[in-house]
Amino acid sequence: MSEDVVSEPSVCTRQPNQIVRRARIKPGMCGPNSLFVGQVGDWTWDAVSQFCGTDVYNARNEQGSPTYLGFYYYHIKASPDFHPGTLTFGDMLQVDSNVFGFGSESVLTLHLISRASEGTLYAEPLDLDTFYQRTPDNCMFIQNFNRWLVRTEGGSNEKLQKSSPVDFVSEHLPQLPARYSPRLVYDYARRNGSFLTEEQKAQLQCVAQERFEYQVDITRDLNGVGLLYFASYFTIVDQAILRLWRKMAWEDQSFMDRAVLDHQICFMGNANMSAVLMLEAQLWVDPGNPHAQKIFNVVIFEKSADRMMAVATVQL
Amino acid sequence: MSEDVVSEPSVCTRQPNQIVRRARIKPGMCGPNSLFVGQVGDWTWDAVSQFCGTDVYNARNEQGSPTYLGFYYYHIKASPDFHPGTLTFGDMLQVDSNVFGFGSESVLTLHLISRASEGTLYAEPLDLDTFYQRTPDNCMFIQNFNRWLVRTEGGSNEKLQKSSPVDFVSEHLPQLPARYSPRLVYDYARRNGSFLTEEQKAQLQCVAQERFEYQVDITRDLNGVGLLYFASYFTIVDQAILRLWRKMAWEDQSFMDRAVLDHQICFMGNANMSAVLMLEAQLWVDPGNPHAQKIFNVVIFEKSADRMMAVATVQL
Repeated sequence: MSEDVVSEPSVCTRQPNQIVRRARIKPGMCGPNSLFVGQVGDWTWDAVSQFCGTDVYNARNEQGSPTYLGFYYYHIKASPDFHPGTLTFGDMLQVDSNVFGFGSESVLTLHLISRASEGTLYAEPLDLDTFYQRTPDNCMFIQNFNRWLVRTEGGSNEKLQKSSPVDFVSEHLPQLPARYSPRLVYDYARRNGSFLTEEQKAQLQCVAQERFEYQVDITRDLNGVGLLYFASYFTIVDQAILRLWRKMAWEDQSFMDRAVLDHQICFMGNANMSAVLMLEAQLWVDPGNPHAQKIFNVVIFEKSADRMMAVATVQL
Repeated sequence: MSEDVVSEPSVCTRQPNQIVRRARIKPGMCGPNSLFVGQVGDWTWDAVSQFCGTDVYNARNEQGSPTYLGFYYYHIKASPDFHPGTLTFGDMLQVDSNVFGFGSESVLTLHLISRASEGTLYAEPLDLDTFYQRTPDNCMFIQNFNRWLVRTEGGSNEKLQKSSPVDFVSEHLPQLPARYSPRLVYDYARRNGSFLTEEQKAQLQCVAQERFEYQVDITRDLNGVGLLYFASYFTIVDQAILRLWRKMAWEDQSFMDRAVLDHQICFMGNANMSAVLMLEAQLWVDPGNPHAQKIFNVVIFEKSADRMMAVATVQL
């Protein structure tokens, strides 16, 4: 029987650590939800599978236990004309993913995402200098820092421990410069419950706070291996932002229209499906120009153990 | 610079209406959530784009308005050893999608989904006889019946009307036999608020009921064009089932372990982001054998207009 190959989004690699793809935005990848951040996470797993010697979707450690390339730090830098909220059905993207080595238990992936132009691929792979020093213009920079994690107590999602697959290699990749180690950033966030610097806090004013419980939703929040899905943290953070939004008596429509220009989140722990989370959310603005910039800070705790699970700082 | 093509899941077509693909299950496509049903929806849009002359992701009607290939009826038939809840990271599937013509404003797609075996493609395309007469064995049959819908009142999600893209063609496809028209099934469901037949109801007993409000969640429920995402209806139905589950004092873990063997849902309307929904849910069992089979029936209304939005019958 005749078979014709259908054109799929083309994917190609460039030496030594870069994978470039065209991807069509479909309903399962966009919207005012966490589908796009989840899709980018899959692209990270694809890129690491491509370069690091292991099948990330089916990885095992030395003991034969499943090990997951958990998301530890996720940073989106976007531009007013191209941010996750602007993506809709049919958009054709170019996704340029660059993988960097950082020891035997973690790996960093930088994605440069833009509207695809016919036939063009980027000349310059995205590096950390560009990520931190440039403001994205009509594109998004997304940094994913991932660590290999295994369960240590049966089916519990608590006390995940670092453990790499036996076949994981990253020494051959460009190495992450020490000055750009995400550890510097997330250690700060963990200590301070925020990515905001003392200098920023001195210039800004906290104009609203909320503290509320969130029961893990077992019809939505878990992933295919029963862990709290990293993309669900984004939605939980959005729920905290929405509470502050409504507290300020701002319209839901303006919440939907918001442009997230910078979104940092550090994931410090997972939780069981029965967990109740406690969220602490703050809205910070520049008192001299309160409409210019809104910065939301959200800390997620596991309530029963008062254990910090995530810190997010989101700038509109 | 050298470029190597990376192997992507292969996709090929067979004449005249069948598309076959291998697909790897990734975190963004599985779990106790609605990611998999959403992914299947994207495969439907891919298949229709392939065969029906129009780019479903970017379709316009004669007036130039965006028209969406809305989900009207979605029916999953699964087997105890292979149902959406069994899918996990790394599973390699074979997805065999068959498109059938049914007039100028709608189209029906049947997916046969199974674990991929090395190099094998199905000899027999899935047809409606098989869908209705066979019990899937270690595979899933999924039927999607879709209609072209446009907004008629500005940005409102109410009063969507049928309207096809100018370039949509389906006469060249195998036509849906009249006896298998999904209209027969969903007209019944609309009239009766259930897919259960009178005969089934006579044999079964309703042992629990719940009625509760659900506020559309603007951090989760909408899609990339601002409509209530069809996959969100599955989650809303699951929330109703979970309420009944807990009312019966059954464990959350057994809810997570449930095997959905048959899931029918008819989508009769959409809703705005400010909508409050009213859900009516029932649990039916065989009184002679109450643990053998559980059937959940869920009706979703838009509360302010008392408008029926969806009917679902889910059999474990």
